[in-house]
Amino acid sequence: MAFLNDNYLKLKAGYLFPEIGRRVKAFCDANPEAARRLIRCGIGDVTEPLPAAVITAMHKAVDEMAMRETFKGYGPEQGYEWLRAAIAKNDFRDHGIDIADDEIFVSDGSKCDCGNILDILGAKNKIAISDPVYPVYVDTNVMAGHTGEANDAGAYSKLVYLPCRPSNGFIPEPPKKYVDVVYLCSPNNPTGAAATRPQLEAWVKYALEHKAIILFDAAYEAYITDPALPHSIYEIPGARECAIEFRSCSKSGGFTGVRCAFTVVPKTLNAQAKSGEFKPLHPLWLRRMTTKFNGVSYIVQRAAEALYSPDGKAQVRALIEHYLGNSEILRIGAKKAGLKVFGGVNAPYIWVRTRKGITSWQAFDKILGDANVVITPGSGFGSKGEGYFRISAFNSRTNAEEVARRMPLLKW
Amino acid sequence: MAFLNDNYLKLKAGYLFPEIGRRVKAFCDANPEAARRLIRCGIGDVTEPLPAAVITAMHKAVDEMAMRETFKGYGPEQGYEWLRAAIAKNDFRDHGIDIADDEIFVSDGSKCDCGNILDILGAKNKIAISDPVYPVYVDTNVMAGHTGEANDAGAYSKLVYLPCRPSNGFIPEPPKKYVDVVYLCSPNNPTGAAATRPQLEAWVKYALEHKAIILFDAAYEAYITDPALPHSIYEIPGARECAIEFRSCSKSGGFTGVRCAFTVVPKTLNAQAKSGEFKPLHPLWLRRMTTKFNGVSYIVQRAAEALYSPDGKAQVRALIEHYLGNSEILRIGAKKAGLKVFGGVNAPYIWVRTRKGITSWQAFDKILGDANVVITPGSGFGSKGEGYFRISAFNSRTNAEEVARRMPLLKW
Repeated sequence: MAFLNDNYLKLKAGYLFPEIGRRVKAFCDANPEAARRLIRCGIGDVTEPLPAAVITAMHKAVDEMAMRETFKGYGPEQGYEWLRAAIAKNDFRDHGIDIADDEIFVSDGSKCDCGNILDILGAKNKIAISDPVYPVYVDTNVMAGHTGEANDAGAYSKLVYLPCRPSNGFIPEPPKKYVDVVYLCSPNNPTGAAATRPQLEAWVKYALEHKAIILFDAAYEAYITDPALPHSIYEIPGARECAIEFRSCSKSGGFTGVRCAFTVVPKTLNAQAKSGEFKPLHPLWLRRMTTKFNGVSYIVQRAAEALYSPDGKAQVRALIEHYLGNSEILRIGAKKAGLKVFGGVNAPYIWVRTRKGITSWQAFDKILGDANVVITPGSGFGSKGEGYFRISAFNSRTNAEEVARRMPLLKW
Repeated sequence: MAFLNDNYLKLKAGYLFPEIGRRVKAFCDANPEAARRLIRCGIGDVTEPLPAAVITAMHKAVDEMAMRETFKGYGPEQGYEWLRAAIAKNDFRDHGIDIADDEIFVSDGSKCDCGNILDILGAKNKIAISDPVYPVYVDTNVMAGHTGEANDAGAYSKLVYLPCRPSNGFIPEPPKKYVDVVYLCSPNNPTGAAATRPQLEAWVKYALEHKAIILFDAAYEAYITDPALPHSIYEIPGARECAIEFRSCSKSGGFTGVRCAFTVVPKTLNAQAKSGEFKPLHPLWLRRMTTKFNGVSYIVQRAAEALYSPDGKAQVRALIEHYLGNSEILRIGAKKAGLKVFGGVNAPYIWVRTRKGITSWQAFDKILGDANVVITPGSGFGSKGEGYFRISAFNSRTNAEEVARRMPLLKW
């Protein structure tokens, strides 16, 4: 008698983005005229072509696969050494951050890594997440049986929710009660807020005191414009002893359809075994990756490597500036509409307060119906997201300008 | 106080192939002369270039990513519809097997899928595996806490081991005691045996009677030459109610470095919840894939699609015939060496009995040292693999012929 994983039955409704997809499809089917002027600022998906250096690198890699002499079969599961070295040097050591090549684990996505990291952590950890939050952190913990049941509002009994509000700049403070594992995302999805150095210092201090682990999602670090803001948790002394960092090429190089990311697991990071001993997590993650993963496509790894070439770096910079330019245009548009606007300066997301008394999904339906623009309802990211919506700056300049033009015309 | 997953501490030594890698490196460092004539028949990794149709498709896909109008960001996590449709039609429906497009889940590897499938299954399932067996089935169950501790021989207390011997053609019979989940691999890695229709019928009968689930690994189905042998578990009536099938482009299209595979989860397959109700696994796997995975690279999915074009099919056929030609040459070579030989007819692996009294690792060291050929010790696949070794046919023709020439020269 085969048994299923009952934890899956505790999951709430559909994952947010498929749900948005279903609503948009229903609207478009019913309104073909409006569908033609639809602009999507919902899912945070890039729109601009890949950097030229990446295209060149991929063509070259494809050609290598066409010849016996240069053909590549299985690579190292944790990534080719040349890619791990390029990442560790360019993203960390060149900025004075002490990260070794073999502390970099190349993967096919940060979403995968954020979920898979739970494989190596114990079942009895007390987990803290921000509210609002990227839904994957919650759902993967539900699946792993860490959360208990959800109440009617969708909050899980065993999770610790850390509220993000204008008063804390949408970056949660360490809680009074202890937690074992905390997810931090900076620059933040969905709020567009970026943690300051003192905020991260407070978290590292908390983690070291409680022997807790920070799962630091820095998928959007390339969007940081303020030179005072940390790009990596490892800029904070002590973080090598308490943090795992997730990075992605998705939003820097535009790799959402290409698939490459990486996770940093310092060799100095320990967690407790049932025996009471503290043991390093690095060998566990290495074992997990070599056993349950077979490495990223060779062609994709060459594409990622090209992001670190001089041409690649300049082209990535231009991509980021394009999307940040959209952010600025959208922020101004939303302000003109009389809405209170957060984020969008060090991040490609603008976090907007709805008009008083209007829920996130009401705003979603209104903006879809009247402006034919798809946004993401804030309540989809947690109860503290209610009364907000997220606008994604991932779009063409023309579309960003058009959305900014339509927003102030909305009659609430 | 963050806790680690203690189950990882129950894992035995290194994963087999990294261990072989270390031994080979040590030998080559100590014997640079012999290292130059080294031929690798260890890891089952393809050696021949990708089919021309795949190269063309990938160049085209890369070019699409270079233009805004044809750029692709996130795709559906479970795979593009055009690829799922091509797979369901060509691999199943064209052979009279009833599989719908949306029962196909495209992934980046069968190794990943075989491990990840445990996410949706409950913790109290009784798990059966063959002995010898592909180590990933065992290690992923250890990590998930399904196995208990290992004894000195490396056998885990809660796993049910099904012995594979010459007398059962290396395909295990259903056990007398009940099990909930059983892994079957046909054509088999490592033994090269392929299950007959009556053998699979016996398993489907067992699974239906016990409401058990068969995890059917058909990664090597393209190597079946005997028209009487089933390519898919779904050729057996009733299998849609009791089986999940794993397939891969790794060994058919030579995609070990490209990364594409798929899993078939029929909508008619149920498992029991704690409530006692039987519920379909399809929505759980869909939820798992959409939450913990972000889809396979667009370029790679176009590459996989090309395998199903008329040119692609012919080129895959030629690749398979090349490797099967090697198999035949290696079988003859091993027989000439006076060794007892199994497999290698419907599979790219030859399973060879060592000389009496010689262990698998002794044979490994002997063949490495004297013939400068890397094979895989059978004991690395389980206790019943002791006294055997595996020769992989994934090689150039020249190398296969050279290995066949060297084998009979060995002095045991």
